[in-house]
Amino acid sequence: MDTLFSDGIKNTPPSFVRSILKAASDPEIISFAGGLPNPISFPKEELLESMQRVVHEIGALAFQYASTPGLWELRQYICQRYNQKFHLDLTPDHILITTGSQQALDLIGKIFLNKNDGVIVEKPTYLAAIQAFSMHEPTFYSVELENDGLNLDQLKEALNNQVKFIYTIPDFQNPTGLTYSQEKREQIYELLKDKRIALIEDDPYGELRFEAEHLPYIGMNRLPYSIVLGSFSKIITPGMRIGYIITKNKELHQALSIAKEASDLHTNIFSQYVIYDYLMHNDIEKHIDKIKSLYKKQAQAMISAMEKYFPQNVQYTKPQGGMFCWVTLPPNVSAMELFEKALEMKVAFVPGNPFFVDAKDANTLRLNFTNVDCDTIEEGIRRIGDLLKEM
Amino acid sequence: MDTLFSDGIKNTPPSFVRSILKAASDPEIISFAGGLPNPISFPKEELLESMQRVVHEIGALAFQYASTPGLWELRQYICQRYNQKFHLDLTPDHILITTGSQQALDLIGKIFLNKNDGVIVEKPTYLAAIQAFSMHEPTFYSVELENDGLNLDQLKEALNNQVKFIYTIPDFQNPTGLTYSQEKREQIYELLKDKRIALIEDDPYGELRFEAEHLPYIGMNRLPYSIVLGSFSKIITPGMRIGYIITKNKELHQALSIAKEASDLHTNIFSQYVIYDYLMHNDIEKHIDKIKSLYKKQAQAMISAMEKYFPQNVQYTKPQGGMFCWVTLPPNVSAMELFEKALEMKVAFVPGNPFFVDAKDANTLRLNFTNVDCDTIEEGIRRIGDLLKEM
Repeated sequence: MDTLFSDGIKNTPPSFVRSILKAASDPEIISFAGGLPNPISFPKEELLESMQRVVHEIGALAFQYASTPGLWELRQYICQRYNQKFHLDLTPDHILITTGSQQALDLIGKIFLNKNDGVIVEKPTYLAAIQAFSMHEPTFYSVELENDGLNLDQLKEALNNQVKFIYTIPDFQNPTGLTYSQEKREQIYELLKDKRIALIEDDPYGELRFEAEHLPYIGMNRLPYSIVLGSFSKIITPGMRIGYIITKNKELHQALSIAKEASDLHTNIFSQYVIYDYLMHNDIEKHIDKIKSLYKKQAQAMISAMEKYFPQNVQYTKPQGGMFCWVTLPPNVSAMELFEKALEMKVAFVPGNPFFVDAKDANTLRLNFTNVDCDTIEEGIRRIGDLLKEM
Repeated sequence: MDTLFSDGIKNTPPSFVRSILKAASDPEIISFAGGLPNPISFPKEELLESMQRVVHEIGALAFQYASTPGLWELRQYICQRYNQKFHLDLTPDHILITTGSQQALDLIGKIFLNKNDGVIVEKPTYLAAIQAFSMHEPTFYSVELENDGLNLDQLKEALNNQVKFIYTIPDFQNPTGLTYSQEKREQIYELLKDKRIALIEDDPYGELRFEAEHLPYIGMNRLPYSIVLGSFSKIITPGMRIGYIITKNKELHQALSIAKEASDLHTNIFSQYVIYDYLMHNDIEKHIDKIKSLYKKQAQAMISAMEKYFPQNVQYTKPQGGMFCWVTLPPNVSAMELFEKALEMKVAFVPGNPFFVDAKDANTLRLNFTNVDCDTIEEGIRRIGDLLKEM
């Protein structure tokens, strides 16, 4: 890369997922590659009705420059929803609307990271978080993600380093689909409660729980540097890029607001008004139930197909919600080789490598089940199963 | 600020403009403070018609995750417009849609700046650019902005340092309203043509020329590291945050795309479709003419009022377009003191300080004329004039 460029951008990997998005969007390909919500989650006509109301009732204000933290009414709605569900006492001052959750990751990198600062991440973790943080050339410490959450011994060891924050996705993690148990959440809280380290709980999928009961956040309301991320992308539309940050720490909120101001002034205000109006005029719980029942069927179709078509020595997670399954092949089988063969058979997925900061585990892969119908899921998994039997 | 925070965020000033936005939005206050377009520039009903078409003709695609560089059709429209006006040969590959022009500044900082890298800026310059670049702790070299553009001697001297890029606003600059002459543009090109330095030409106001002829870009099509920024904020709506970067340098475009991907994945795709549909179904030239003729009247009202009410020893610029006038008070008069007195008299503006990287020139101020009607402009300037006569 040109020497004119910063060390930060040289250190930032392009996204593998986005680089194969074109191949994966070929209509002949069965794609388990993206993280696309099913279009059933886009209430198009209802949103159009909201747009009509916003244009006529709000008018020019919805088209003008707006304040950095975001639409007050939308922030109040978010508080009330979280207060009700989790028995919190949030106020709109604790919320910052972001341009999708991805921007939250960008802002977090900006306010915390100097070069070589420590960041603890799950192993594996969300690839676009690796991207966002890499810009600041941190030192990553990755901690094994087990079936019930972070490996505690590894976490304790990682905490011996100079670390600014821990980045976690406790519910239906991307890429693994795993969820932290109640016990692990408490153990992690105990480890962190006396430490000056921020805990990021990235929660874009929390609403998409189709099995068992919701579990409380690890740090919210009790750790001094707790940050929770949320998003309307998975329950209304990702195209409008409306996410949010929740933190009760005033200094954190202030720093994030300054970073946001410098990044894009404010989030699309028209879309903020539209999402707010939609929430006021529609039954969001009913809408989410519809999405969950679809995703549950799709997840079951994928798990059943894997049981039927995958060889015995292939392991996979069984998510209680969210959008992804994670597959572990026998140690000697390369997921990248499988990926190339699968593309020839018109099936796409994401090989595990880009989800690791050290990119070693080459025998894993991520499967998305939300954007393919059940019959097609079975057909796609059958093709991958055939390839696995050959290899 | 908390020691947990990065040096970058500690180095980033909050925006003075945004901090007084609340005071300035008091309906009793005559505000020359913001940079708000007149709501006449928001074609609300036409945009609503576009939304209806987008929902019905594009459907789910307009609500789904989308590609990082932006909607291909919108990028093609932008090329064609620039090719026609400036005799260029741009293609959609040269365009990157951004979340407002502010994001372009953020991405530019990200791809170029290591700590202490040199950045040349106009003196004074756009305060939110100072903000965006400050995050990377660069060394600023500020070059006096004269009536016809950068001071060439100072520019030559600044170029002796290790400099990554020059940030300019050649048309109706923010905050001064000044425009670079054709001759200065050529002289700057000559100075830069053999240098490995990027030239940023930030051009959000170019369409708003209400006097004299449009001048060509300095670097576009001939400097190897030329970057031009544009925006729909001033001609359609700022609320939707749709800006763009133009560069023919492939490596630059690629680096900017990776930085964009890590920052917010992509710009609000629904709004991109709506802006594109609006452009296809409406006469944008006629719409821009309407805005220009209004702003011309408002600028004239402000200049006439300053002639009438300001003391002789107060100087001000007479812009050929854009949104701002710049006022220079006698050396011993403090603009900040004037600001505080003016607020008591229910008039707001922005004191010059935040537009300087070294914050020395305390006897200047910026006046915005686009969001106040002509009679109110006269009344506001009269009040400031009265205060100036007292001081």
